[in-house]
Amino acid sequence: MSFAASVLTLFPEMFPGPLGISLAGSALGRGDWTLQAYDIRNHGIGRHRAVDDTPAGGGAGMVLRADVLAAAVDAVSPSDDPRPRLLMSPRGRPLTQARVRALAAGPGVVIVCGRFEGVDERVIAGRGLEEVSIGDYVLSGGEVAAMVVLDACVRLLPGVMGKQASGEEESFEQGLLEYPHYTRPREWEGASTPEVLMSGDHAKIARWRRAEAEKLTRERRPDLIDR
Amino acid sequence: MSFAASVLTLFPEMFPGPLGISLAGSALGRGDWTLQAYDIRNHGIGRHRAVDDTPAGGGAGMVLRADVLAAAVDAVSPSDDPRPRLLMSPRGRPLTQARVRALAAGPGVVIVCGRFEGVDERVIAGRGLEEVSIGDYVLSGGEVAAMVVLDACVRLLPGVMGKQASGEEESFEQGLLEYPHYTRPREWEGASTPEVLMSGDHAKIARWRRAEAEKLTRERRPDLIDR
Repeated sequence: MSFAASVLTLFPEMFPGPLGISLAGSALGRGDWTLQAYDIRNHGIGRHRAVDDTPAGGGAGMVLRADVLAAAVDAVSPSDDPRPRLLMSPRGRPLTQARVRALAAGPGVVIVCGRFEGVDERVIAGRGLEEVSIGDYVLSGGEVAAMVVLDACVRLLPGVMGKQASGEEESFEQGLLEYPHYTRPREWEGASTPEVLMSGDHAKIARWRRAEAEKLTRERRPDLIDR
Repeated sequence: MSFAASVLTLFPEMFPGPLGISLAGSALGRGDWTLQAYDIRNHGIGRHRAVDDTPAGGGAGMVLRADVLAAAVDAVSPSDDPRPRLLMSPRGRPLTQARVRALAAGPGVVIVCGRFEGVDERVIAGRGLEEVSIGDYVLSGGEVAAMVVLDACVRLLPGVMGKQASGEEESFEQGLLEYPHYTRPREWEGASTPEVLMSGDHAKIARWRRAEAEKLTRERRPDLIDR
């Protein structure tokens, strides 16, 4: 069974977009994962297929209706669907690499993309949506955030990166930011590749990289160490 | 002068992608911002236009060459270019809504998208690249991360959202997550819109929303309050 992604959106034409190219696109072509982009407007109300309405209590923007969104969720994800249902939202739990690993190890994911001011709060509990945030900033909608989640998951699926790059030495995998990289040329604009990397002493190189990663993490992200 | 975005990438065909649709796409069509997707491979070396090489000191993956990337940066962003130069990287400073506001108020942005294992460390200082992370997870490349930065910036440009949605009541703008939203129907699957929102008492509604936002933030993101 390949990893099955379903995205509920008002802009299905945004998909696969960047996910149809390069690493994720090749994996999609091979069938390592599948992508369904489902139009929430299929369940819009009336002649104009309305999906939103003004916020109760007043205020700016429009709110996605609970009944419309619930009907779309029900069409894509029956009640016995084992896949987690995410709602991309700046109010959500911040996405972490550990969560990405867990998602990638599962059957797939259903992702609801909000637009407008937000979604009617009642559909969140009503359909068991888990609010997930990709970071502390606000986007025009959940679509690009959904692409972030899927790109992060897909690269971890078996066979996608190949043995070469298992991802074990990457940022966050050991609670540290990644050490600095160098390649040819050895001299560039007066800057040299660190001597130790040319030594051929693998144990020494590993120690240097670990020390650099720890130093970088202490300087830039002490919060990762304190966790 | 419109907000000028230049993206350096090995996959220029990913752009504008989702940024060509909906809010960001309309703004692009109106000329509220411009988008240049520049192919790093234009500066590749030799017949095969090589852009990467094996990591000094060994290890998995390939590293983007400093000379190739520097030539691409120089072609797009001369030394007197006032735009900040970002390098999307999980090692970077986490993106915040305050940083997004500052970027959106400026002349634009140059964004370098890494791929492979990483980029040669020397080009970061050599071309004044600022490492920026969109969150604590790893992507297959910087392209979707660049889309996140641009989508977040573009919606804040003058005229893009309109007066209706100034963004002032959104998550993070007051150090709080956003209060819950409701719209019609008033009853849905046995759940009612909170009574206070139907009261017509604007001061009371504002107090309720503020209290809900504070409660939500305390429950989910106490780190935002402690800041």
